[in-house]
Amino acid sequence: MNFDLAAMGAKPRYNLLTALVVPRPIAWVTSRNASGQLNVAPFSFFNLMSGNPPVLCLGVGARDGIPKDTARNILETSDFVVNLVSEACLPAMNATAIDFPPQVDEAQEAGLALEDCIHIDVPRLAISPVALECRLMQAVPFGVGRNILIADILSAHVRNDAVLNAERGHIDAFALEMVGRMHGGGWYARARDGFRLPRLKEEDWRSQASVQSPEQGTLPD
Amino acid sequence: MNFDLAAMGAKPRYNLLTALVVPRPIAWVTSRNASGQLNVAPFSFFNLMSGNPPVLCLGVGARDGIPKDTARNILETSDFVVNLVSEACLPAMNATAIDFPPQVDEAQEAGLALEDCIHIDVPRLAISPVALECRLMQAVPFGVGRNILIADILSAHVRNDAVLNAERGHIDAFALEMVGRMHGGGWYARARDGFRLPRLKEEDWRSQASVQSPEQGTLPD
Repeated sequence: MNFDLAAMGAKPRYNLLTALVVPRPIAWVTSRNASGQLNVAPFSFFNLMSGNPPVLCLGVGARDGIPKDTARNILETSDFVVNLVSEACLPAMNATAIDFPPQVDEAQEAGLALEDCIHIDVPRLAISPVALECRLMQAVPFGVGRNILIADILSAHVRNDAVLNAERGHIDAFALEMVGRMHGGGWYARARDGFRLPRLKEEDWRSQASVQSPEQGTLPD
Repeated sequence: MNFDLAAMGAKPRYNLLTALVVPRPIAWVTSRNASGQLNVAPFSFFNLMSGNPPVLCLGVGARDGIPKDTARNILETSDFVVNLVSEACLPAMNATAIDFPPQVDEAQEAGLALEDCIHIDVPRLAISPVALECRLMQAVPFGVGRNILIADILSAHVRNDAVLNAERGHIDAFALEMVGRMHGGGWYARARDGFRLPRLKEEDWRSQASVQSPEQGTLPD
């Protein structure tokens, strides 16, 4: 079945696209405005864009044509933290997604403990097993009040037990119990059901003469 | 544990970041160069950025400082298809990730059947349950030969059995059996293990006086 996106209404198109591009990693963003007020909100229009240099991007929408607090804060002060969302973070994350009035401190509402960052004056969330300290590199405005925020990643905080070899950057990604965003109506998926499909070299491909199936398993090599 | 990214080597930093930002959706991109030659390659530095307008972004790296074929093709001809990757696509997807010489047709090597698109002169992959027809809106160059490609999504092809209500854009995202990219060494995760955590209104939050836990389940509402 084909959907002509230009011919669809905004709500069905949003439903459709958020159900098709899955699973999406979740950025639970802490940011401050110029007065120092903290904001906490989750986003799934987000991903790593490069390891070298370390760059991520975040798509932040608008409400009634005005960029959401997170986008306004980052455009004002540049610095923010992407706290990644594990299964244990979900109830508190969902509380910070509530449409509170702007003066409400979402971190306090959700009972979230804060920890200082190293390079930036924005706190990270203690409950999150991974926090990335970020600085805005470029904002790409589009649509009505929307922005793609492209940022350098300065530093990564990782829960100790998931670090297999710090020097090589080897992490047990399954131990982090991260959650991916699925479709509307509040659907998510655990990232526990893992398997390995190693990348092939051309000579291996030529010698095996058929496509390879995934190995079963849940432990990283 | 904290990792100062500027102080790390390129390979450990890549290992680290690709293990922390998970699960990542996979864009299996078909594109053509100005002469019409087809290229097929998978990328996980990719996500939806907005439903309204429909926009996605794709981070494409370089090899020896020269943008990969996919980036060069899109910069030359603007149009491309993001084929999403289900479990059934994996063996063929992995074949197209092989570092073949530029004259090799990855689609033919992997035995992939092609289907015509509606708005653009680039084929989609028949095996993929979802294909998004895309047109480059803006390229953001960064690093050495790297680009973030920001694109309008023109049209979505979706396998019939996953469409619950076409008018409302309701899709059974679990029926698509999509796969997320995890850490290096070829690790992936199925997006099958789903649950629902509906978004709260402020009044519900005030009345329940504590954070809500996820409902168990695997079917969309």
